[in-house]
Amino acid sequence: MKVNGTPTRTIWRAEDGAGVEIIDQTKLPHAFVTTRLETLDDAARAIKDMLVRGAPLIGATAAYGMALAMRADSSDEALTAAHDQLYATRPTAVNLRWALADMKRVLSPLSPSQRENAAWLRAAELCDEDVAINEAIGDHGLDLFGEAWEKKGKTGTLNALTHCNAGWLATVDWGTALAPIYKAHDAGLPVHVWVDETRPRSQGASLTAWELNQHGVPHTVIVDNVGGHLMQHGMVDLCIVGTDRTTAAGDVCNKIGTYLKALAAHDNGVPFYVALPSPTIDWSIKDGLKDIPIEERSGEEVSVITGRTESGEVVSVTITPEGSPCGNWGFDVTPARYVTALVTERGVCRATEEGLKSLFPDVAGNAAAE
Amino acid sequence: MKVNGTPTRTIWRAEDGAGVEIIDQTKLPHAFVTTRLETLDDAARAIKDMLVRGAPLIGATAAYGMALAMRADSSDEALTAAHDQLYATRPTAVNLRWALADMKRVLSPLSPSQRENAAWLRAAELCDEDVAINEAIGDHGLDLFGEAWEKKGKTGTLNALTHCNAGWLATVDWGTALAPIYKAHDAGLPVHVWVDETRPRSQGASLTAWELNQHGVPHTVIVDNVGGHLMQHGMVDLCIVGTDRTTAAGDVCNKIGTYLKALAAHDNGVPFYVALPSPTIDWSIKDGLKDIPIEERSGEEVSVITGRTESGEVVSVTITPEGSPCGNWGFDVTPARYVTALVTERGVCRATEEGLKSLFPDVAGNAAAE
Repeated sequence: MKVNGTPTRTIWRAEDGAGVEIIDQTKLPHAFVTTRLETLDDAARAIKDMLVRGAPLIGATAAYGMALAMRADSSDEALTAAHDQLYATRPTAVNLRWALADMKRVLSPLSPSQRENAAWLRAAELCDEDVAINEAIGDHGLDLFGEAWEKKGKTGTLNALTHCNAGWLATVDWGTALAPIYKAHDAGLPVHVWVDETRPRSQGASLTAWELNQHGVPHTVIVDNVGGHLMQHGMVDLCIVGTDRTTAAGDVCNKIGTYLKALAAHDNGVPFYVALPSPTIDWSIKDGLKDIPIEERSGEEVSVITGRTESGEVVSVTITPEGSPCGNWGFDVTPARYVTALVTERGVCRATEEGLKSLFPDVAGNAAAE
Repeated sequence: MKVNGTPTRTIWRAEDGAGVEIIDQTKLPHAFVTTRLETLDDAARAIKDMLVRGAPLIGATAAYGMALAMRADSSDEALTAAHDQLYATRPTAVNLRWALADMKRVLSPLSPSQRENAAWLRAAELCDEDVAINEAIGDHGLDLFGEAWEKKGKTGTLNALTHCNAGWLATVDWGTALAPIYKAHDAGLPVHVWVDETRPRSQGASLTAWELNQHGVPHTVIVDNVGGHLMQHGMVDLCIVGTDRTTAAGDVCNKIGTYLKALAAHDNGVPFYVALPSPTIDWSIKDGLKDIPIEERSGEEVSVITGRTESGEVVSVTITPEGSPCGNWGFDVTPARYVTALVTERGVCRATEEGLKSLFPDVAGNAAAE
């Protein structure tokens, strides 16, 4: 999407072909800084230190990291070492594992002299595939925005609420939950987005707001407490969020607080949509509440907040009293009954086992047979 | 309640009788500082600049402000001028209006020479009345905590969740929603409190956590997104919050985000209690969603956060990108159907017109006749 008016991806091969460019997301929203990765170590560090984040973008960066590694040394030993080094950066990220396995599968059979070129090509392909998936989600989601606009009598503003950042910054381009928003905006629908701050890490206030602002999509940042009030007063036409993992029965694991918004949407008759690339469906489990372990993270993410001072310096401050412990759960599970529909790259379906199977008969069958 | 082990109120007459001592709450939770008020201007400034906050404490400070005014000049003109100056500090606070009217009613008929002494006595009485109301709420609420403890089989920890600050810092002592928590803790129940941060002003993370920490009540600060997840996993035995205004039908207006917690409590079978001194009941309205206007406040409360740096300096930082607007609604309304019971100084009742009338037949009748 656009940054300062220029269409931009989160990662791309440098013009001279000898490096990779990324956006240093640790600097957002206070500064837009791109960084050049020249070596395998650079790529590993970018993932580990979260200059790049979001499962699809981590996968893409790992793929390009393999290309940078092959550029320096394309031996069998170097191939294995690069795979292992990148694998260890964020060991729980599914896309990371998947992208690295794919690169290894493609590169291993080749002779060392062919590997660098093949690695660049395959990494670019993986990026393009991610973009195609997200754009398809955007197109299917656009239909839902169109329906909401019809339902509203095509007057006023079409108000969407989103939580956390499921935008293009988490992917190569378009994003997941934000893809339909960008599609609707680009199609001329008068979309306005309520952006949940999304404490504790405030990805909404920092990343989602920044993305929308750069692309020119009207939006308003709100604290996570506000959405229910807005829905009670008819100020939200639809909610759309991403997901980290969706069960075969349609339970949705996503950033902590998603469940509260789904409850409010249900209580007020507001559609609650979840956008997901199909690799995030976990066909092996059904009951999200029982079967998805929820990560507990450092209390410092709650007690310490980072922002910029009036002089532009980026500073961290503690907001809690000394001696008060903080608890920090990263995700929650929204039961499928509160999800109006799932928006995937193959289309829209109900958040049920039948709904998912109707769109993914091939994948669902394979998973069940495993 | 206790501060550094010493029982403390939020406001008291100085030992020499010539001034009033308050806690400067703008310094919390980073420093505990008391300040002496010596003049009417000091009292007015303390209210206006929010050194004191919380409706009951504002009323008490205004009453003492009248005493300070009478100490300097007890003429009829000074009495009226003091009333008007204090009245203008926070024009929407019900308790402020009420305390000032009461002081004027008591002082006006007296001769100027009698007024200072009478003002000190009446201000102290108003404070004691506030404490008595809150302590009664605490005693009735304690019964509910006892029931929850029985229901839990008297094992483990009794987990209460609260939102915002309805503690002793908002009153003269005990607080409203926190009064039953202090009573339960003092009675030896193993209470642990989940403290909602309560963005945007973070009164939970700063004031509620500080209070509980000082009194020695086990607690954990969480972001506002977490409560639903905890309730889904049986980690909350009851919720208890305060209210700014409750309708005659039991709809509860309270700090923004209260509604979302009530929805989660309802969805998970967790009791959701609201503690209220009866003056906060608005007998003239029934439908909270329709009849209570919700204050929109500055977006800066969302975008700018204050805390202390590692070196102990108190600093404000901006967390949103330049160019992203913020929306800020101060309160929301929880429909009565999501409130398990109301806890008042006269006892516990259902959140219905019949429930409230059963406890307040006298007041309800008067209001209807007005």
